[in-house]
Amino acid sequence: MSKLLSLSETVAWLKENDDFLILTHRRPDGDTLGSAGALAQGLRELGKTSYVYFNPETTPRYAGFVEDYIAPDDYNTKNIIAVDTASVDLLPKNATIYRDSVSLCIDHHKSNQLYAELLFLDADRATCGEIVFEILMMISGSISSITAECLYVALSTDTGCFSFGNTTANTLYVASLLVEAGAPNKELNKRLFRTKTHERVSLEGMLTCGLEYSFDGKVAIASITLDMLEASGADEDDMDDIAAIPGSIEGVFVGITIRELSSAHDCKVSVRTRAPYDAQAICSHFGGGGHSQAAGFVAEKTVEEIKAKLMEVLREDRGTVHLSS
Amino acid sequence: MSKLLSLSETVAWLKENDDFLILTHRRPDGDTLGSAGALAQGLRELGKTSYVYFNPETTPRYAGFVEDYIAPDDYNTKNIIAVDTASVDLLPKNATIYRDSVSLCIDHHKSNQLYAELLFLDADRATCGEIVFEILMMISGSISSITAECLYVALSTDTGCFSFGNTTANTLYVASLLVEAGAPNKELNKRLFRTKTHERVSLEGMLTCGLEYSFDGKVAIASITLDMLEASGADEDDMDDIAAIPGSIEGVFVGITIRELSSAHDCKVSVRTRAPYDAQAICSHFGGGGHSQAAGFVAEKTVEEIKAKLMEVLREDRGTVHLSS
Repeated sequence: MSKLLSLSETVAWLKENDDFLILTHRRPDGDTLGSAGALAQGLRELGKTSYVYFNPETTPRYAGFVEDYIAPDDYNTKNIIAVDTASVDLLPKNATIYRDSVSLCIDHHKSNQLYAELLFLDADRATCGEIVFEILMMISGSISSITAECLYVALSTDTGCFSFGNTTANTLYVASLLVEAGAPNKELNKRLFRTKTHERVSLEGMLTCGLEYSFDGKVAIASITLDMLEASGADEDDMDDIAAIPGSIEGVFVGITIRELSSAHDCKVSVRTRAPYDAQAICSHFGGGGHSQAAGFVAEKTVEEIKAKLMEVLREDRGTVHLSS
Repeated sequence: MSKLLSLSETVAWLKENDDFLILTHRRPDGDTLGSAGALAQGLRELGKTSYVYFNPETTPRYAGFVEDYIAPDDYNTKNIIAVDTASVDLLPKNATIYRDSVSLCIDHHKSNQLYAELLFLDADRATCGEIVFEILMMISGSISSITAECLYVALSTDTGCFSFGNTTANTLYVASLLVEAGAPNKELNKRLFRTKTHERVSLEGMLTCGLEYSFDGKVAIASITLDMLEASGADEDDMDDIAAIPGSIEGVFVGITIRELSSAHDCKVSVRTRAPYDAQAICSHFGGGGHSQAAGFVAEKTVEEIKAKLMEVLREDRGTVHLSS
């Protein structure tokens, strides 16, 4: 059970302590890595010793924002901080040695499991980066352009460049201050949001050409087979948010993406819906779960078997997902 | 020659006058229409009579933001205001009757032709919407949620939801105040930036599957044939910014889109480049023109003939576009 800290208590704790090691979560995104980089940099500017713990799952997209802060093997840390990490189960494998010794967690997830000794949680913030911004501003009254760049990555990537539904007035306000402080938003946006890899474009093309519509265009199903992955050369990084494609089509209320995993009999399915259709209700028929508008499941079935069963569920469940009328 | 006004002079003029008619530019985008809607609404909230002049080129994407303000045929205006319109030549045909009688122009284009009697110009602003925001805030100290919605459309569409290179700290700051004032950014973003028509998705799929790379992936060529347009059902609205696709691929320096117009022997070509490659230089070989990073031409040739000739130009022009090494 964590002790909950206020903003000023968090700032006081950071000022009193030193020799920090910052942990990020599994499958690290721009928010956890950008927050970690910004916090490490901000604490160093305060004269502290501060490093980010190497996360082996870091992708090339974000590696550059933390590389200057990666802790050497013989680093002797006294205080472990986790950012944007709601549960110890979300730590990467190499960080599980620290699962019982996290001193402070800085987070914006309401679902935080209270595993750290101290917790600064603000569930009203769209991104963890906004919280780190507040902390650093309270510590020193300004932020450097290096810190601003890391935080801009955190804010922008977690909100789809301010286009997702989680974007608040505060996100935009903090982003404006980051750009003012020197975050190179033009270059970052071009790289993070306006460039796609050859492999991604190729996979998107195949996926789009193979889209199947049903129920008068209300349902769109995309398939990603192992053959498509091989032909396109796409890797995990190239798949980012690809499950959003079917649901982003005008008139589609249920967007489904079926992806073959290790074999043709092992699939991962993502379901995105618009109200009144309930993604969670659809996935519950397959033992899956999630939220009402975004849910998923895995199944030891082929793409065709899953499609057939999904059609049945969409046609027959009159409670929540009935689409046949 | 216009008389240049300061912000406070502009506000004073708006307060002193009444019976406004607001003009927008040809091929109206979100900035001109959003600014017009916001200004009409803001002036009405001040007790003024204010209408937007019907622009026959308004597309369904933006029509809803001005429909409540469209002037009746018998409206007797005393003061004509043009927003986001740099030149009288940019007025839609039905507005040319007003070309010599624009009282006030509110604009952010450095290229403004000084055609209005009075001009409030701020070329440092990414969008005209930011200027209208400043004016309305100075008039009444706050803005309504209706005005905020129109202005959010102006700011977000002119900056690609804050992702284009023109986005400034001020754009993000004003956007944060608009969301605070009640602009429904979640719904607007979903509709304006995260939804594609069935036809667009279908055309993009075909275009992407048919992408041809050359010169070690530095050049990507997309073709849009009349057959593809028929098969996808895509219209002009669905083609918005589609020529940006080849150039947005990682590693591509020259992105080319060839589109069949009335027949297979009548094509329009768009060329987008990244430095050091010069789109204008490439297009000059075909009698076309434009800017150094975005240019185009039309040719009475087939897609295949144009491709062959382009390959030749890209291989042989050692001055500006040489790609063979």
